[in-house]
Parts: sequence; structure tokens; C-alpha cells
Amino acid sequence: MEEIEIFQQLEQLLNEKNYRTFREKIIESEIPEVDLAQFIDEKLEGEQVIIAFRTLPKTMATDVFSFLSNETQQAIINAITDKELQKIVDDLFIDDAVDMLDEAPATVVRRVLENASVETRNLINQFLKYKEDSAGSITTAEYLYIKKDMTVEEALRRIRKTCKDKETTYTCYVLDKNRVLEGVIAVKTILMAKDDEYIEDLMDRNIISVTTDEDKEQVAKLFSKYDLFALPVVDKENRLVGIVTIDDAVDVIQAEATEDFEKMSAMLPSDKPYLDSKVTTLFKNRILWLFVLMISGMITGSLLGQYEASISTIPLLVTFVPMLNDTGGNCGNQSSTMVIRGLTTGDITTKDWLKVWWKEFRVSLLVGLVLIAFNFLRIILFSHTPEGVNVYLVAACVCGAMMLTIILAKSLGAILPIIAKKLHLDPAVMAAPLITTIVDAVSIVIYFSLVTLLLF
Amino acid sequence: MEEIEIFQQLEQLLNEKNYRTFREKIIESEIPEVDLAQFIDEKLEGEQVIIAFRTLPKTMATDVFSFLSNETQQAIINAITDKELQKIVDDLFIDDAVDMLDEAPATVVRRVLENASVETRNLINQFLKYKEDSAGSITTAEYLYIKKDMTVEEALRRIRKTCKDKETTYTCYVLDKNRVLEGVIAVKTILMAKDDEYIEDLMDRNIISVTTDEDKEQVAKLFSKYDLFALPVVDKENRLVGIVTIDDAVDVIQAEATEDFEKMSAMLPSDKPYLDSKVTTLFKNRILWLFVLMISGMITGSLLGQYEASISTIPLLVTFVPMLNDTGGNCGNQSSTMVIRGLTTGDITTKDWLKVWWKEFRVSLLVGLVLIAFNFLRIILFSHTPEGVNVYLVAACVCGAMMLTIILAKSLGAILPIIAKKLHLDPAVMAAPLITTIVDAVSIVIYFSLVTLLLF
Repeated sequence: MEEIEIFQQLEQLLNEKNYRTFREKIIESEIPEVDLAQFIDEKLEGEQVIIAFRTLPKTMATDVFSFLSNETQQAIINAITDKELQKIVDDLFIDDAVDMLDEAPATVVRRVLENASVETRNLINQFLKYKEDSAGSITTAEYLYIKKDMTVEEALRRIRKTCKDKETTYTCYVLDKNRVLEGVIAVKTILMAKDDEYIEDLMDRNIISVTTDEDKEQVAKLFSKYDLFALPVVDKENRLVGIVTIDDAVDVIQAEATEDFEKMSAMLPSDKPYLDSKVTTLFKNRILWLFVLMISGMITGSLLGQYEASISTIPLLVTFVPMLNDTGGNCGNQSSTMVIRGLTTGDITTKDWLKVWWKEFRVSLLVGLVLIAFNFLRIILFSHTPEGVNVYLVAACVCGAMMLTIILAKSLGAILPIIAKKLHLDPAVMAAPLITTIVDAVSIVIYFSLVTLLLF
Repeated sequence: MEEIEIFQQLEQLLNEKNYRTFREKIIESEIPEVDLAQFIDEKLEGEQVIIAFRTLPKTMATDVFSFLSNETQQAIINAITDKELQKIVDDLFIDDAVDMLDEAPATVVRRVLENASVETRNLINQFLKYKEDSAGSITTAEYLYIKKDMTVEEALRRIRKTCKDKETTYTCYVLDKNRVLEGVIAVKTILMAKDDEYIEDLMDRNIISVTTDEDKEQVAKLFSKYDLFALPVVDKENRLVGIVTIDDAVDVIQAEATEDFEKMSAMLPSDKPYLDSKVTTLFKNRILWLFVLMISGMITGSLLGQYEASISTIPLLVTFVPMLNDTGGNCGNQSSTMVIRGLTTGDITTKDWLKVWWKEFRVSLLVGLVLIAFNFLRIILFSHTPEGVNVYLVAACVCGAMMLTIILAKSLGAILPIIAKKLHLDPAVMAAPLITTIVDAVSIVIYFSLVTLLLF
């Protein structure tokens, strides 16, 4: 709550053009950089953005910059002097700089690269080449490294001298003269050791690392599994390229879950937060699947058309169709969601397919028995069948079709995502909407086949 | 791949009762503890579990233990001596010990507490009292602390002496004599400073902290937002109780996404991984919602029954129902998923309701126009209406009902999750299955009302 007040004061100070107090207020209140960035992004506009940014204490400017939205970053880049830009670009962590340039127009990219030091420019160019979903794309080049023949005392001295610009100071990488990764050692281990021990005797040689082209979702899984803070990224010759830090891994985990939610609800994944997405983008992401599924709905409808004769003789029959379809859809949805999520978190692998199906089969028997028992009673007690139509046979048709539909829906929900995974497709596409459509069509065929068999 | 070979060798060594080589192999190959735990959990049974665990090098035993499943942990606790147990309990991080005891039978809990040191026992008892979803439940008591009147040299000496058993050595907490939290300082900052500087002048007084009863999903959000490695947890008097480390926050993020997936697919959330869940548990988690939604399906069906007269006169009309229902359900699903996910990640707040609805309204107009244009053409070109029935009027009924259904579905998908959030309910419950059911019923009423109006 207090923070809101500070921001109101800051806004007022800007309006009064009282920049000196604005700056002092920021220093004194020690507001986190990410909150300041949010304030600039959301509350300020036009000229004020630039003035506020330039008024920030020098030590905070780059950090605040790295948290700003792409639009605001570009506005600032276009407004500040070369010298100011130079400082920001060289101070930014490489992964943040690359993130910013990935989406920027060519003029901005050129201006940034022109003002970067040779070293930074080379790094940025190297990192810009990594594919969007690869470990390389979230790698940063700022890491601590030492040599194995150093003593603890020497290593500590080096760490204290060089850790300033490193994104994580909590793991040191031990490199040989060709930058090949020989070992890792936690700073904690160095701190705990005696001054005259050698790094070689303390370091861990069993290194968990990935190559630059590893899928970044795989990288996130390694973080979860091994409780890592940072993960080294190497090239094909095992030379250290950089590290991925856990804050970026957390972002990948969040983004991956969002993407799965979208795919499982029949949308193409978006790359912007909802409120920042244009209406036309949302439309484009949604219309394709809606169209495909509408066509499937038409097919289901025309199947229903095949049984027009039965329907006009006993219209009661059609009143059970929504319930059959809903139950089938919901059953398939439950199973496919569990399996897709299990495949994502690594709880389920494709080898488990038989185990998964057998579990779902038994669940579908239990679920089916309860639901058809209820339905059977309801139909024979409360349904008014036309003269000459045996109510027990109607109940048998509905319950038989329901049982088969439930078993089919849960089996498809269990197996289709695993097959997709096996074929290197995304299992999330095999979710509710697609399965519902298949189950709808099949359940109508089963139901009216039983009707034709038993009632006509 | 290599690791698989090592585990095959380890299994063989156990079968040959060659325990000495088993132990040497483990030391030499430097396998991560989490993988060893997985090996013991999945590949070994009965006596072998106990023997393998006792043969582990002493320095690894507790870490491996903390990664084992609850069942295996309990089997080991029941088989080892008091002295062995004592060492493990006192070495475990408090949050791991509490996790283990949360699910253990009373006899195991008693045995563990009897063998813990007084200090550990008190801590465990304190932490066991925190509610399951609170910050307290994932808090650990092992943190580094220093005093503000220390110099950097003194602080570093203290850190090097005491960091051994601390779960994170990367942030130091500055406490006064009553353990009230006065500041935080990164170990990195201490390492970078000169020996004679004072902690007081270096520490950060603007502390991001939570109380023990804060919701743990809120805690996870703070980690994402501020890129934290650890977060201090304080009591009502601002005294430090412990810290939450990022590895536990990552687990919360993953579990939260899984829970939302389950709720959004009409299931009660489970607390075990899929493959470890019993069939009866899966059944119990699923049957309630299936039953509720089946009843709703019946209501939709009986609405259809109201229009028996129209249906038996023109059976063609019923063939458009599946398509109407599917499209309505899918549209609602898309919107509610985006909004629920946005509320979870914090991209959308309840204050944005009007903005969200307006966006969805415009998207529904675009989507609706495309889908009805296609439908209109299809119906007038390919549908065979019975004599005396105007095909343009049929098309008007279908397209009119579809447009209204799409607008309704997207509006409900946008607004219901936000209302749920406002009422402090879980927005995830307002997902596809519930919205589909409402939209199905309403779309049938709209459709047949238009039919009655225009065709009869």
C-alpha cells in the first residue's frame, strides 16, 4: 500500500517538473527496479518517460531499463544520446540485450549494435543466432570462472574481484586454457574450504550441462529435477558458451504452462500477455481451430441426419443426445488433461502407455457404472415413451451407448497424447476439443445403431 | 545413456551382494543424489532398499533420503537403528523433514521426533503447525544471519564458518538481538566490498518479505516478479522465522499449473503424480463433476424435448444442433482459458473486467462473421429443405442463433472467471465444462425460438 503512495508522489513531482526531488525520493525509498519499470511503463507517457528515465540514479538505470516493455525500451533508445546508450548496452546482461533486440525494428538494432563495444557486439551477434526455443536463446555470457590449479585463497580473491558484473555468483565454472568445462564448484564450497586447498580437489567433475541447441523446455525440466540455480551451456566441443540462470528457467516454466493451456483450448499460442494482444491477433489465433471444429460439428450433425427416420418416429430419442455428447466430451477431457500434463512435467513417459491405458480403462468402468445406473433408473421411472415403445429397451440403448462412449473417450484421452509425443508432435493438440469432436460423432453412431437394432 | 549403464552395473553388484564395489562405484561415478534416489525408488524392492541405503557413503545418505518417495522413507525409518535415524533427522533441512512427516503414520512421526535433537524437534513441531497452503509450510529454518555492526571481514569470517548447513548461502539476513529483520544483503555484495566497510552501510533496508500465513501461490508470484533466490518469512512482530528458497517456489508454480489444468477439466485436484494415484482416487476426483454435468446435459436434452413438434415436422433442423453446441463450447473455452490463465499469472486483475469483456466482444464479432458467412453459403447451396420450407429462413435461424451463441459464450468466458475471483472463489472452476453446459442450453433455446418465429 505504501508503495502506491510513493508512486503518486513521484507522478506529482514529475508533473511539477521537480526532478531533483523525484530523484532523491527514488534513492531514499529504495523501490525495487522492477516496480519502477512498471511505474514508467504504465503511468507515464511520451516525453515524461524519457525525462523520468534520464533522471534515475545512474546505478539503477540499466536494471530499470531491462524490466521495461519493448515499446518503452525502443522509445528510450531513439531519444537518448550515443554515450548514454553505450553505457546501457554494455551494462545489460547479454540475454536481456538479445531479448530486447529480438523484437526491435532494424533501425533500433543497428543503433544499438553501433554503440556496443566490440566484445558486446560479437556476443550479441552470436546469441541472436540461436533458435527461439533453444537453450542458447536464454543463455547469458556473464559467469564466474576459475582454473583448477588455483588455491581456495586465490579463487576467492579472483571471485571478489570479478563477481561484480556476473549474473550469478553462486556457481563457479572451472575452465582449461581452451575454455573447455572441466568442473563446477559452488561458491559455498569455496567459502567452506580452507585457504590452502586446491580447486581441483574440491570441484565436481560430474557436470550437468546442455548444448546451445537443446530445447529450452528440457532445460527447465533439468532445473526442476536437480534443484539447480544455474546450468552451464556448452558447444559441441564442450567449451563453455554461457549459463542459464534459474530466473529465466522459471519464466520458461510459466510460459510453457500458458502455451499448453492455449493449445488445449484450441488456440494457437500467443507471445504477448492477454491485455497487450490486439483483437485481430486474438481472432487469428482462434479462428482456425474454431473453423476446423465447426466442420467436425457439421459432420456430427449430418450423421444425426442419417437417422432422421428414427428421430421423426420417436423424437424422445434425440433428447438423450446432448447428455451422451457432454459426458463423452468431459470424460475424454479429464483423461487427456491428466496425460498431457503428466507428459509435460515428466511424470509420464511414452513407455508408460499400457499402464496409463489400463488405469483409464478401470476408471472408465467405475465412472460408467455409476452414471448408467442413475440413467437407467431415471429413464424407466420418469420417461414417457410413445405407445408400443418398450421403455426398458430405450434405457438399454442409452446406457449401452453411454458405457461404450465413456470407455472410448477415456481410452482416446489416454492414448492420443502419447501417440502424438511418440511422433514428436505436441501432445497438447490432442486435447479436449479434438477428442470431443471424435467422441461426439462415434457416440451418435453407436447410439443410433443400438436404437436401430433394438427398437425398429 | 551412460547413466543407465551405471545403474545396470549397480543393480548387478547388489544382486551379487558385492556391497563394497557398489559403494566405490557410487563414489567414483559421482551420480547426482536425486538420480540415486530415483534408482532406489524404482529399481529396488524390500530388503535391497535398506541394504543399498545403508551402503551409501555417509556424506550422501541424507541428501538421497530427502529425494526418496514417502513410502521408501518410511520403510527405511522402520528398519534402521536409532543412531542412524538421529543423524539423518538432524541433517535434513527442516522443510524436507516436515514434508516427510506431513504424510507419515503416527508411529513413524513418533519415532522420528524421539530421535531428533531438542532443537530440531521444536522446529519440526513449530513448522508442522503451518497450514498446507501457507508460506510457513514451505519455509526452512536454515538461513545465514549476521549483525549490522559487523565489518565485511567479520561477516565473511562468520559466513565461512556457518554456511555449511544453510540451504542457501547467497543471501544474508541482518537481525537485531530480538531476531527482528533489519536488512538483507547478498553474499555477492559482501564479496565485492572492502574488508573494513560496515554491513550497516551496505545492506538493503527495503526488504521484500512475507508472513507465515501468506498464501504460497502469492509467494511464488513474488519470486517470478522480483527474480528472487530466497524470500524471508517473518512473524507478526517482523521477527525472522525462516526463508523460502527458489527450488520450493518452482515446485509451487508447477503444482499450481497442474491444479488449474485439473480444475479446468472438471476434476478435483490430486496431490500425487498420475502414475502413483489409485484408480479409486482418480474415480473419486472425477465422478462428482461428471455427474453434475450429466444432469446439465439432461436439462439441455429436455429443452430439446420441448421442441419435439418442430423436430418431427422438419428433422433437418436437429442436424444443426451439434455444430451450434460445439462452436459455442469452443468459443467459451478459448475465452475462459485466456482469462483464467491471465488471472493466475497476474497479467489480468479483476479491475480489468470491462477491458477484457470489450476485447472478447470484438473478437466474437469477427469470429462470428466469418463462421456465419460460411454457414449461410453452405446452407443455401447444399441443404435440401422439405417442400414449403424456405431455405433462406432456415439459414437465417442457424446463423442468427450462431452469432448470438458466440457472443454469449465469449462474454461468459470473459466475465465468469473474473466474478469468481472477485467472490474469492477459484476462477479455474468457471472453465470450459461449466460454460459449455450453460451455452448449450441457451443456444438451443435461442435457435428454436428463432425457428418458431420464422418457420412456423
